[in-house]
Amino acid sequence: MNQPFCAGIDIGGTNTSFAFIDQAGNIIYKNEVPTGKSADPNDLISRVCDDMKSALASSGSENDLRGIGIGAPNGNYFSGTVEFAPNLTWYGVIPVAKMFSEKMNVPAFLTNDANAAAMGEMFFGDAKDIKDFIFITLGTGLGSGIVVNGNLVYGHDGFAGEMGHCIVIQHGRQCGCGRKGCLEQYCSATGLVKTYLEILAGNDPENSSKIDRGIINAKYIYDRAMAGDEDAFYAFNYTGEILGFALANSVVYTSPKAFFLFGGLANAGELLLTPTILSFEKNLLSIYKNKIKIVVSGLPENDAALLGAASLAWNELKTIA
Amino acid sequence: MNQPFCAGIDIGGTNTSFAFIDQAGNIIYKNEVPTGKSADPNDLISRVCDDMKSALASSGSENDLRGIGIGAPNGNYFSGTVEFAPNLTWYGVIPVAKMFSEKMNVPAFLTNDANAAAMGEMFFGDAKDIKDFIFITLGTGLGSGIVVNGNLVYGHDGFAGEMGHCIVIQHGRQCGCGRKGCLEQYCSATGLVKTYLEILAGNDPENSSKIDRGIINAKYIYDRAMAGDEDAFYAFNYTGEILGFALANSVVYTSPKAFFLFGGLANAGELLLTPTILSFEKNLLSIYKNKIKIVVSGLPENDAALLGAASLAWNELKTIA
Repeated sequence: MNQPFCAGIDIGGTNTSFAFIDQAGNIIYKNEVPTGKSADPNDLISRVCDDMKSALASSGSENDLRGIGIGAPNGNYFSGTVEFAPNLTWYGVIPVAKMFSEKMNVPAFLTNDANAAAMGEMFFGDAKDIKDFIFITLGTGLGSGIVVNGNLVYGHDGFAGEMGHCIVIQHGRQCGCGRKGCLEQYCSATGLVKTYLEILAGNDPENSSKIDRGIINAKYIYDRAMAGDEDAFYAFNYTGEILGFALANSVVYTSPKAFFLFGGLANAGELLLTPTILSFEKNLLSIYKNKIKIVVSGLPENDAALLGAASLAWNELKTIA
Repeated sequence: MNQPFCAGIDIGGTNTSFAFIDQAGNIIYKNEVPTGKSADPNDLISRVCDDMKSALASSGSENDLRGIGIGAPNGNYFSGTVEFAPNLTWYGVIPVAKMFSEKMNVPAFLTNDANAAAMGEMFFGDAKDIKDFIFITLGTGLGSGIVVNGNLVYGHDGFAGEMGHCIVIQHGRQCGCGRKGCLEQYCSATGLVKTYLEILAGNDPENSSKIDRGIINAKYIYDRAMAGDEDAFYAFNYTGEILGFALANSVVYTSPKAFFLFGGLANAGELLLTPTILSFEKNLLSIYKNKIKIVVSGLPENDAALLGAASLAWNELKTIA
């Protein structure tokens, strides 16, 4: 541990993981702690910082930590705050970057999970030579990080890149945000399950209430599709159709060279990619056709959030230097 | 004419206008020539350059021209070329920026009309202190220029900002681009006329073929609406509803602080703005509500294209200096 590194911190609803990562993307140290249910963010932040300080001391690298990058739900880059995150027990607007910075005595930077992952793709993944791309996370919801000319787009308020809440079907499925027809109600693990249940109910309306909804998740539908179940296959097909349409529509804003798909649903591979690309090309304005790629992210799934968070710090330090 | 200035050139289907504009946006000299129907772009470019050279010579300011900015349909910023412009008689890909630069012996830069106008709003209009905004031109079609963190978004290929071809109504009106339901089929002078004719036909299907379509244009519908015609009023209302929805959806990408509307339809003022803002706020994700403004452009309509084109050059020279 004698070369400089940054800390990447990924604050999740259940666990908070953190790592020391050098400029080449090597993970030098990694640990995690339960996020906990305390209303006081100092509880979590102190536990993380105490562990990081021990790790620095035991390896004699107290002077090698250069900065901290944090990925957090509802994280705002401009203010360095986490704002009313629905899956955390903190209330209100918490100055998380400032708190980490003060405890560790290095600069700290914060953004939301999808933005951090997009930055990770640029630093450590397959977007190293791409200056315009969009990173899409397909998990419980749909998150996005938009990169224009080599820089993440934050917008005037830090809340750019909320593609999951682009309305794709007017008067469509009810979304948790209060509106209807948002992209993430169709293209996410949750959306896939809804689509599959709708198909089952359409096949057999009378018995639809008897379906054991408890066992049906994205993994279940994937396994069924791979085993030849046409309904499951069609559920992926429909998900890809909507996703392809939405990505084609998004091209008119920033004209990216590539889309990187990440997360559970992206791992379905061709089952999702094939209908997505088909629908994408079909719906594209002709000037964009056959030149924009849609691929699965090159980041290792388990460490993507940490690599993304650390790359945020590396990127800022590059700008400062 | 003893202070430095840039030339702004606006190549249109009928006329090509050009002006010398200083860094404060003052127009020092202005003229225009017919674009002409020659297949050889040298014909137009020579006539413009000859006139500019005479103007420079007669005022003894040969050394004050610093650069040239060009706004042109289908203009590509990266290559400086005009590519297959449908309303020009040139065939193929024409290196217009290079041709102007060589004849006038100063650097020349080129982009499409809407991008140039967005740049003009930033330099000489009401976006001087705004780093994230979207400029919308509502003419025969709908053009857009997207500004992120003080820079125009060009995308990987120079074709970013084609919001007129965002599909807002699936299987909607046929667009000239070959797809259906594009925004500009609803929110443009052409779209307004289509909407009004649809309303008239809906009121009286049997006599709809007898409508004198020759007299119906955006100005006619505006005058009717101001005179109390409910159908004309509703046509504007519907246009605003779709525009507000589309702008709300566009916010999730770059989270702009403002939208600037420009062009004939924008001059309808409250008739269009009121339903647009109503629909915009109704369709916005809650984190964006009540903080993004939609206003009419602050650029003088007659000179907006020239100011925009010149500001493109001023902006580039700023970067070079």
